[in-house]
Amino acid sequence: MLQSIEARTGQPVGAAWPESTLADIDAAAAAAEAVAGDFAATSAAVRGALLRALAAALEADREKLVALADRETGLGLPRLNGELDRTIFQLNGFADVLAAGTIHAVVDDAAIAGTPPVGRPHLTRTRVPLGPVAMFSASNFPFAFSVLGGDSAAALAAGCPVVVKGHPAHPELSRMTAALAHRVVDAAGLPAGVFQFVEGGSIEVGVALVNAPAIAAVAFTGSFKGGTALAKVAAERPRPIPFYGELGSINPLLVLPAALEKSAELATTLAGSICLGAGQFCTSPGVIVVPAGADGDAFVQNLAKALQAQQPHAMLSAGIRATFDRGVARWRASSVLKPLVQDASAAGSLAPRPYLAEVTAADFIQHHELQEEVFGSAALVVRTLSIDDAVAVLQTVGGSLTVTLWGAEADTPEHRRLVRAASQVAGRVLFSGVPTGVAVAAAQQHGGPYPASTQPFGTSVGYAAVDRFLRPVALQDAPAWVLERKGQPC
Amino acid sequence: MLQSIEARTGQPVGAAWPESTLADIDAAAAAAEAVAGDFAATSAAVRGALLRALAAALEADREKLVALADRETGLGLPRLNGELDRTIFQLNGFADVLAAGTIHAVVDDAAIAGTPPVGRPHLTRTRVPLGPVAMFSASNFPFAFSVLGGDSAAALAAGCPVVVKGHPAHPELSRMTAALAHRVVDAAGLPAGVFQFVEGGSIEVGVALVNAPAIAAVAFTGSFKGGTALAKVAAERPRPIPFYGELGSINPLLVLPAALEKSAELATTLAGSICLGAGQFCTSPGVIVVPAGADGDAFVQNLAKALQAQQPHAMLSAGIRATFDRGVARWRASSVLKPLVQDASAAGSLAPRPYLAEVTAADFIQHHELQEEVFGSAALVVRTLSIDDAVAVLQTVGGSLTVTLWGAEADTPEHRRLVRAASQVAGRVLFSGVPTGVAVAAAQQHGGPYPASTQPFGTSVGYAAVDRFLRPVALQDAPAWVLERKGQPC
Repeated sequence: MLQSIEARTGQPVGAAWPESTLADIDAAAAAAEAVAGDFAATSAAVRGALLRALAAALEADREKLVALADRETGLGLPRLNGELDRTIFQLNGFADVLAAGTIHAVVDDAAIAGTPPVGRPHLTRTRVPLGPVAMFSASNFPFAFSVLGGDSAAALAAGCPVVVKGHPAHPELSRMTAALAHRVVDAAGLPAGVFQFVEGGSIEVGVALVNAPAIAAVAFTGSFKGGTALAKVAAERPRPIPFYGELGSINPLLVLPAALEKSAELATTLAGSICLGAGQFCTSPGVIVVPAGADGDAFVQNLAKALQAQQPHAMLSAGIRATFDRGVARWRASSVLKPLVQDASAAGSLAPRPYLAEVTAADFIQHHELQEEVFGSAALVVRTLSIDDAVAVLQTVGGSLTVTLWGAEADTPEHRRLVRAASQVAGRVLFSGVPTGVAVAAAQQHGGPYPASTQPFGTSVGYAAVDRFLRPVALQDAPAWVLERKGQPC
Repeated sequence: MLQSIEARTGQPVGAAWPESTLADIDAAAAAAEAVAGDFAATSAAVRGALLRALAAALEADREKLVALADRETGLGLPRLNGELDRTIFQLNGFADVLAAGTIHAVVDDAAIAGTPPVGRPHLTRTRVPLGPVAMFSASNFPFAFSVLGGDSAAALAAGCPVVVKGHPAHPELSRMTAALAHRVVDAAGLPAGVFQFVEGGSIEVGVALVNAPAIAAVAFTGSFKGGTALAKVAAERPRPIPFYGELGSINPLLVLPAALEKSAELATTLAGSICLGAGQFCTSPGVIVVPAGADGDAFVQNLAKALQAQQPHAMLSAGIRATFDRGVARWRASSVLKPLVQDASAAGSLAPRPYLAEVTAADFIQHHELQEEVFGSAALVVRTLSIDDAVAVLQTVGGSLTVTLWGAEADTPEHRRLVRAASQVAGRVLFSGVPTGVAVAAAQQHGGPYPASTQPFGTSVGYAAVDRFLRPVALQDAPAWVLERKGQPC
């Protein structure tokens, strides 16, 4: 059953309702498949207009959408208005990309007379949409990674129908957004199969959606556990399909000696990033690497003080809060951690307190349980004795969405080693600022080696996200009438 | 044990030798990993020079390489000289691509002042090499898809060390080619870890190579059974890695009414393609779709006659021949097939006879056993009553490396439907010529939806093959000294 919950009080609002049945899910996928060929053949202009109309409809309903999102997530109006801004921005951004024509750009190799390998036929490399995309909404971004978020925008831009699974942590908002999408698709004169919506919180609903024969690819943002399980389902279908899972990560942030000079200011910035959205960001910094020594000690003291002053708001749901508490309890029980910030949360309060502890690089590397993400406002300070230590910490963390290097402005052999090590494990390497907040741009990469994502080549933020849903096809000696379509299916 | 066999007689040549041990394999992967960072940081010029030196060394040793290849494969000197031409051409071609700079091209988004979503930091999207690539050689192309074939060329171009597994069907040639590569790498002043070689025919060797912790990606060309099993191993590692398997396919070829006018000529061309290299091409046409009716009957008669006149040479190995014979026997036993060409091979001859049979579209769609590839000079003619039938046959075949449409020159609704259906299941759609022979070009796509390949976005022929081994990394606010490297790791 699905039930809307008021996040700040934990109280149910209205009646519960049943999740989608397996028949509903198959019907939704089949409806998407039935229109996939025609939608793939629509022009870039048609799809661009659809994306802009979705953006405009979100803007028109802003007030009631944000109010409902706030009730179901407790994220607050400023944050939710900003997130809706971004969601609208990226729908329009994909429309701009479609208008620019890059999605349908082709690589053309003219025929060369003569025998191979020099001689060759005329080859035109095009891209075709994969077909219906199953999209799993995330709990922590009720607009930007939910029903009409980046994955839906990218799939629709590519010419793939989407079957969205709403997230059970904001079920009324999901329904309201889906209803808006249905209206816009209909008003655009497109068939309802272009946008389908299912809902449910059970494992069965997720598995059924990934297993629906009509589904051609899956986009998922969520937990490591859920994503890994569904990736396995996708790989074991009679016909395996691509599974684009963004599973979150630890996001190491290295404070190098040059940055320690600005200790107080950076510590405040970092504390804010750790507690942003109550730490419910997949790019939340979870490991802070600080050199041993007096300057490092001062930074750590400043960080602890700044973190102590933070007041995270209530988490998204009781389930997420319980997982956070279990993770912190695991850390509290560790004998190798030295606690720095560990206030108990006030009795009955749904707002968690931040948690910070310190550990040596050697202990961090040795203790596997310290390397698992704790989703929320908790971080570990890892103290290093050398660049070797810092590189070893990065290699231990392995795949991460981001690595941040503060103080690498100078070109030194040590910094070169760190940039290399960071590039080997992360999808994004930052040299200033904090990893929370992911700009929507052509150059963005929001992904990374496993376990940050299941397909490290794909990004789930930015305009390269569309590449996940387009498959190359080489046309050999194609007649003019085929080539006139510039790679779009007939 | 490995043993060189004279393909035309089945007789062993020289003594047998043991395959690589599990310790050998881990040592090879570890040697590759130890140099991966430094090799990733080499300039495009250094890697281009390596590729050109490998090409030059193959050319210098052409005579003895081709003679040995002929002894171990029986493919004949003209074909093997042509294949070596292509192998040299593609090594030099990747060097040209490196010189052109496209591999290291970046996407740069300037910073925009202000708050998100419009405001953003400076982002530079680069690509970094994945790390050591395990490369599984194929039996049927002892140069172009073997030790220094396209996958090795692409991985080295990307800046990834390779660990090649030689194919046991041409073990002496594999060793000779590997020794040549070792010499060239050494002469180029590069560490031996850049090119490592292991050998063996057992499942254990393949599994150990995919499981070696140092391996970052796998490139595989071979059977559906072997590729599917190894893809599972790659997915179930503690850290899963990309598995690029090219598993072969059925390659439907549709003879549309407009093409039936040139029946005799096209039938001869097609018979030659079915028997090219004794049918041992992953792009060999295995399903020929022909409309019912008198014109179609004439084409089928011409095809049967032309195929009867073909004399395929001995197959690559006793194992491949046995698999072919089993496949043909399965078809012979089918009650829904009408045989057209089914001579028994001469007693004691290693050269197989071609096989052709006819089936209705309805029966083909219903009988799953007819949809499996028979690797060798065998094909089925599928007779269709309508365009619906033809589309249904394509959808039944599912993923295929190629679909060929003969006679689609005119822009008609029927042809549009067929081009769409072909694009949905194939990596390459041909409008003239035969699918055997894959040009090495920027626009080429040699891959396709499962089961043609395990990662339908990748190609194993052409210059886009390098993309499989480069992972995007976004650099945020990178200092000038990092950006001067144009996205190459430090």
